[in-house]
Amino acid sequence: MVVSDNIIRIGIVGYGNLGRGVEASIAQNPDLRLVGLFTRRDPAEVKTLSGVPVHRMRDLERLRQDIDVLILCGGSKDDLPQQGPQLAALFNTVDSYDNHSAIPEYFAAVDKAAKSGNNVALISVGWDPGLFSLNRLYAEAVLPEGATYTFWGKGLSQGHSDAIRRVPGVKGGVQYTLPVPSAIEQVRAGGNPALSTREKHTRECFVVLEAGADAIAVEQAIVTMPGYFADYDTTVNFISEDELRRNHHTMPHGGFVIRSGTTGGGASQQVIEYRLKLDSNPEFTASVLVAYARATHRLRQQGQSGAMSVFDVAPGLLSPRSPAELRKGLL
Amino acid sequence: MVVSDNIIRIGIVGYGNLGRGVEASIAQNPDLRLVGLFTRRDPAEVKTLSGVPVHRMRDLERLRQDIDVLILCGGSKDDLPQQGPQLAALFNTVDSYDNHSAIPEYFAAVDKAAKSGNNVALISVGWDPGLFSLNRLYAEAVLPEGATYTFWGKGLSQGHSDAIRRVPGVKGGVQYTLPVPSAIEQVRAGGNPALSTREKHTRECFVVLEAGADAIAVEQAIVTMPGYFADYDTTVNFISEDELRRNHHTMPHGGFVIRSGTTGGGASQQVIEYRLKLDSNPEFTASVLVAYARATHRLRQQGQSGAMSVFDVAPGLLSPRSPAELRKGLL
Repeated sequence: MVVSDNIIRIGIVGYGNLGRGVEASIAQNPDLRLVGLFTRRDPAEVKTLSGVPVHRMRDLERLRQDIDVLILCGGSKDDLPQQGPQLAALFNTVDSYDNHSAIPEYFAAVDKAAKSGNNVALISVGWDPGLFSLNRLYAEAVLPEGATYTFWGKGLSQGHSDAIRRVPGVKGGVQYTLPVPSAIEQVRAGGNPALSTREKHTRECFVVLEAGADAIAVEQAIVTMPGYFADYDTTVNFISEDELRRNHHTMPHGGFVIRSGTTGGGASQQVIEYRLKLDSNPEFTASVLVAYARATHRLRQQGQSGAMSVFDVAPGLLSPRSPAELRKGLL
Repeated sequence: MVVSDNIIRIGIVGYGNLGRGVEASIAQNPDLRLVGLFTRRDPAEVKTLSGVPVHRMRDLERLRQDIDVLILCGGSKDDLPQQGPQLAALFNTVDSYDNHSAIPEYFAAVDKAAKSGNNVALISVGWDPGLFSLNRLYAEAVLPEGATYTFWGKGLSQGHSDAIRRVPGVKGGVQYTLPVPSAIEQVRAGGNPALSTREKHTRECFVVLEAGADAIAVEQAIVTMPGYFADYDTTVNFISEDELRRNHHTMPHGGFVIRSGTTGGGASQQVIEYRLKLDSNPEFTASVLVAYARATHRLRQQGQSGAMSVFDVAPGLLSPRSPAELRKGLL
């Protein structure tokens, strides 16, 4: 069905967990082709899953004509604030910028660059921001009188795992964020409860101690850590290094967006719930990026340019199927 | 924040449960104003919730300049196949056409009319088709390797309730469709089970008998009815007329769209679930129509015309908030 003229040529910038997820996801989409991978490392030292050519970052400009959309797989803290605007001036781009509070500023910088290069740059794509944002928007638009709740987990939090590992006496560890089941039940039941931070999520840590470290002191340092654990009920479990390696090496995540609202002058309670249960957070985020890469190419083909978010993209553009097929098969 | 120049003027065609739901929903949206209601009945005999002017259908053409978007609240069997194309030639329209198998044909007829009048006509808006369709599309685009399941209920089915009431010996009755909990659990657990019609849903009937009717014969007639009940496990409960009136007068509904798929070469299971739990099916459908009426007006303002579905509408167009507010508040 897909003819080669319609193949969308993708480049990946950055090859960590997310970049590897994008590489695997592209293989699931016959209308997309991965043409190159760009890294700050020595290309000779990068081993890919697919055997795709690996280039240095400086080769990007030379390969401009070979790439329809560039998927930026760097981090939101250090990589994207630089790369986002810089590369949107040269390519159509998709990124997963997830520093929620700085999105307006990031959008402005990318928008200016994308417009200067006549490119489309889709920012903050993934599941939160991304699919969760979409569900907050749809639910609020449909039920203007109500409240929206976002719960995360059960999932591995990279930031909180890093915080644990900085505690003196800790050799290794991971942290899982868990939604409180009774809070979810309260929200589902309607009535829009006021829930504190502590009432919505708990935190569970699995920690490997350094030889001779004081377990009680480590536990105290973790559960009282401001900004990370102090506002939560936190459980600390001490485990062996072997157990950490065996049972805590995957990156599950997920969560819930629930809006409960009323219609008919308050007579009827209506509940909208969206839920993700993910074995692999980076692979899922990558899959969302890849679907939006298809949309990005099509938006550019329509003559659009500038920065956009998932809110600006008509859902049909994400699918390889034609509008008529979608109406017949999925509407 | 909303200035009067931006008020979107809405007309309602048809005043049953759905039309009343639209009237109530418009009152929840300060940027929309209901300017008139159009009915085939004698306007003098129609009592509205809001006191909005009631007109005859033939007044529609005269009031063209006063209406930005017309929400069509008639049925899919007899009303919309006529009214959809006819009114799309004169107005921007939104409807809830829900005869899934005839959508391509209906789309073509409405598209032709809307283009002739330079209008935007949004068809098949609601929750299924509508929000459920969107979720099938997003989930399939993000997880191309997997399977999508739609479960309905617990909810009152109008068509099946009508079928019960046609059985000789039945004075009144309602039918609820229920998803099978173990089937939902199987789907959530992944593995994409093959589920028969009988394994996905059960049907529960509450029936009032005519005086002297044979309960066993009525039950047999119901549970063996082809096309309605024969393929399902159906329970028939006999109740009093009073109980029917007291406990079965509301129109709850809802359901689930669940897609389970794999990423990373099959290594990771990813599950996306969307769920609605609705006290009032018509009020919720109406709320979706109203949000899409806002989008319809904006699409026309952008210079678009023709028939469209929810797949063609960028999510941001549904919200009264500006793109910058949405990025800051919901992304």
